[in-house]
Amino acid sequence: MKYSLQFMIKPPRNCLTSFTRIPKPKYSNFIKCYSNEAPASSATNNMSIALKQQLYMIDSNSPGSVFFLPHGTRLFNKLVQFMKIQQKKHGFDEVITPLIYKKKLWEISGHWDNYKEDMYRVEGNEVSHGDAKDEETFGLKPMNCPGHCLIYKRFDRSINELPIRYSDWSSLHRNEASGALTGLTRVRRFHQDDGHIFCTQEQISAEIMKTLHLIKLVYGVFGLSDYTLMLSTRPDNYVGTLEEWNSAETQLKSVLDQVAPSSWSIREGDGAFYGPKIDILSRDNYSREHQIGTIQLDFQLPHRFELKYRPHEGDFKPPIMIHRAVFGSIERFMALLIDHYQGKWPFWMNPRQAVIIPINSSHVGKANEVRDLLSGRSNDYETLDDLVNHQFDIDIDSRAETVGYRTRDALNKSYSYIILVGDKELENNVISLRSRDSRKVTTKTVEEVRELFQELVRSYQ
Amino acid sequence: MKYSLQFMIKPPRNCLTSFTRIPKPKYSNFIKCYSNEAPASSATNNMSIALKQQLYMIDSNSPGSVFFLPHGTRLFNKLVQFMKIQQKKHGFDEVITPLIYKKKLWEISGHWDNYKEDMYRVEGNEVSHGDAKDEETFGLKPMNCPGHCLIYKRFDRSINELPIRYSDWSSLHRNEASGALTGLTRVRRFHQDDGHIFCTQEQISAEIMKTLHLIKLVYGVFGLSDYTLMLSTRPDNYVGTLEEWNSAETQLKSVLDQVAPSSWSIREGDGAFYGPKIDILSRDNYSREHQIGTIQLDFQLPHRFELKYRPHEGDFKPPIMIHRAVFGSIERFMALLIDHYQGKWPFWMNPRQAVIIPINSSHVGKANEVRDLLSGRSNDYETLDDLVNHQFDIDIDSRAETVGYRTRDALNKSYSYIILVGDKELENNVISLRSRDSRKVTTKTVEEVRELFQELVRSYQ
Repeated sequence: MKYSLQFMIKPPRNCLTSFTRIPKPKYSNFIKCYSNEAPASSATNNMSIALKQQLYMIDSNSPGSVFFLPHGTRLFNKLVQFMKIQQKKHGFDEVITPLIYKKKLWEISGHWDNYKEDMYRVEGNEVSHGDAKDEETFGLKPMNCPGHCLIYKRFDRSINELPIRYSDWSSLHRNEASGALTGLTRVRRFHQDDGHIFCTQEQISAEIMKTLHLIKLVYGVFGLSDYTLMLSTRPDNYVGTLEEWNSAETQLKSVLDQVAPSSWSIREGDGAFYGPKIDILSRDNYSREHQIGTIQLDFQLPHRFELKYRPHEGDFKPPIMIHRAVFGSIERFMALLIDHYQGKWPFWMNPRQAVIIPINSSHVGKANEVRDLLSGRSNDYETLDDLVNHQFDIDIDSRAETVGYRTRDALNKSYSYIILVGDKELENNVISLRSRDSRKVTTKTVEEVRELFQELVRSYQ
Repeated sequence: MKYSLQFMIKPPRNCLTSFTRIPKPKYSNFIKCYSNEAPASSATNNMSIALKQQLYMIDSNSPGSVFFLPHGTRLFNKLVQFMKIQQKKHGFDEVITPLIYKKKLWEISGHWDNYKEDMYRVEGNEVSHGDAKDEETFGLKPMNCPGHCLIYKRFDRSINELPIRYSDWSSLHRNEASGALTGLTRVRRFHQDDGHIFCTQEQISAEIMKTLHLIKLVYGVFGLSDYTLMLSTRPDNYVGTLEEWNSAETQLKSVLDQVAPSSWSIREGDGAFYGPKIDILSRDNYSREHQIGTIQLDFQLPHRFELKYRPHEGDFKPPIMIHRAVFGSIERFMALLIDHYQGKWPFWMNPRQAVIIPINSSHVGKANEVRDLLSGRSNDYETLDDLVNHQFDIDIDSRAETVGYRTRDALNKSYSYIILVGDKELENNVISLRSRDSRKVTTKTVEEVRELFQELVRSYQ
């Protein structure tokens, strides 16, 4: 149990790594949940942040499946949108694939033999017997790879088409023991920024290089610059040829030397039986290490699914398959970000970008008008909204409370900006703006605020 | 079987309507699928459109669950993005809710008694017995409403918060008989533009009014202006009070008279036992009627879940629940659009907005440059892409085929625009542009093309 810490704080998450079952602890002490079940004591204040900001809830009717509340859903969607835009440049094609597949598929992929206990079985409620029953037994998918293999296999593939890169945001389910479930970090249902690349042996290097660049950029945006790349190489028990392994490992080392000469290390013999891998380990505010992204080569699955491509010359060949994720589990990545920012989201991803406080009830009309201009929301239900409009997440707090009370409440909920509307503002057709991080109030027109907000989003602040 | 045609062409789709099981036909003749299973003969050319455009595939490993291929996924995502923007204005808050819930929840909602045979049962593969087994038996959700009731119930609600409106894009599963599965129209897994509104009795009118406006606008964008609104009223066997029904029906009629005085009709006594409803029936190119959107009032579910809100005065009251969907099933709506447009997608939603044809290999560099400018794709992997960039769906066809051949192929795949790059274009730093619908070629700068494309998206053309 060399890496027990790592496994203590996360469920097996990557594509095939979890063919070996790891004993699970009853409690984790990373992120505690906001739950109506047994409340857990916590060393961090993550629970209070999630509660205060109403990001998500847990319910005993579906243990381990997170309910993202409206503001948590905004965060989730911003992470997804952000990654979709980056992936497009990398030539990924998003696909939407089924959640349930017949048992026979999981037998081909090897999951039914090696991973069955972590999977949910799905069956109809109508009575059926014997063969018919077996025919209608499904597995609820824990991973996207078999579905992507089916798409690859459906069409004749030539070397000119490679690399083929599929991305997928499907729900994944893994049957974790109920005692071990914790908030966003140990769950039964989760989502990944999952990608599978089908390529030739010669293309491995370029694909890994691009993925490492993306990891560097993405972690940089979130200020998660303290991470290590860990290369795990050929174990004693492996599939594929020695030549495949040597070529792949040489390429991986060379790429790591180019992209991150001083921040990678090696675990000799610790690769999965189906291929070498690079894990990305990030260190949090408390110096605890978490595995986030991963890049795994796979020499096995293409054989199990008999995948092929037509090379320039000679016989059909199997492609290499690369499983990769930059966020890894979005749920876990969000937990890490809650911890990292302590709830003080940067403007671009804040689910509460600004709140408008009308000083008294005579200012509510103006507050609505400002909100409409900044958020794209309006009462004009007879026209369609523009597909490419900027829409910011703006709320109004027109409760009959003092401005001081509402301001403190807004700061408590971590709105990036507070916009005040009163007589003076009404008269001069401006608004007063203060940020979460400074007490200074400035006066601006709505158009100026809009430009400021656009610039913040544009520059990922 | 008064409405047998309607049920012949669709699975029960709306929230609770399908508590009554309808006999299912073995084959439907609406839209045929692109499948590796038994090919179905078809009066329409939908199958050839889906094949030609590589929109989706069906596989025997997951009957009734559609695999959306890259271009089909683009279409799917554009419909979702379009509706999310419109819903934001209507005050909907998106939530992400679990897919599996324990049996006890479905007993509360009434599904386990009335809808069990249409639902999938989910269980772990680890051995458990008796009570423990029952405790870990889940239902795979066929509808989002019970999850939304759990969110509503979690917090104390006051009348000032109402209406509360949740939207949800979850995967839904219904166990249709395998013989009846057909392409996008009779499926086991589907998605809805699902929304639930919790409101007071006095708010019904305003909510229905806004929903009907949205339906009119949305169907208008797609040129589906031939539709009927069908009001179904109180049946003999009903829950709730007569006063609730009378007030609701009066409000619905009054709203229909205002919004669509000449295009609604009534089915007396044909409402669901839990509330009156308005179905939207659209007529396709072949004059066949399809139920698409729906608005259903529900006096029952808030009671089953004991939902309450604090009014201005007096005791807690149960809210009214409104189930509504404008697209209905996105899969079915896509099938209807394939039929309606015959594959000639308007630019704004076309998964193939333009193809660039370099005249010979010396023009490929320029073609790449134009593609990068229009699509946001590039080889610069060391910078992040802008969150708010316009990204168009642009392909390059640099195959060693004649320009005539590639042009015909592009028209066959229904690209909205064909961009030609040759010596003349290279020299003058322009491109030649022709549209799908006209043979006329015009010369433009890339910036002019970009502006044209932006304007087309902005105006939903």
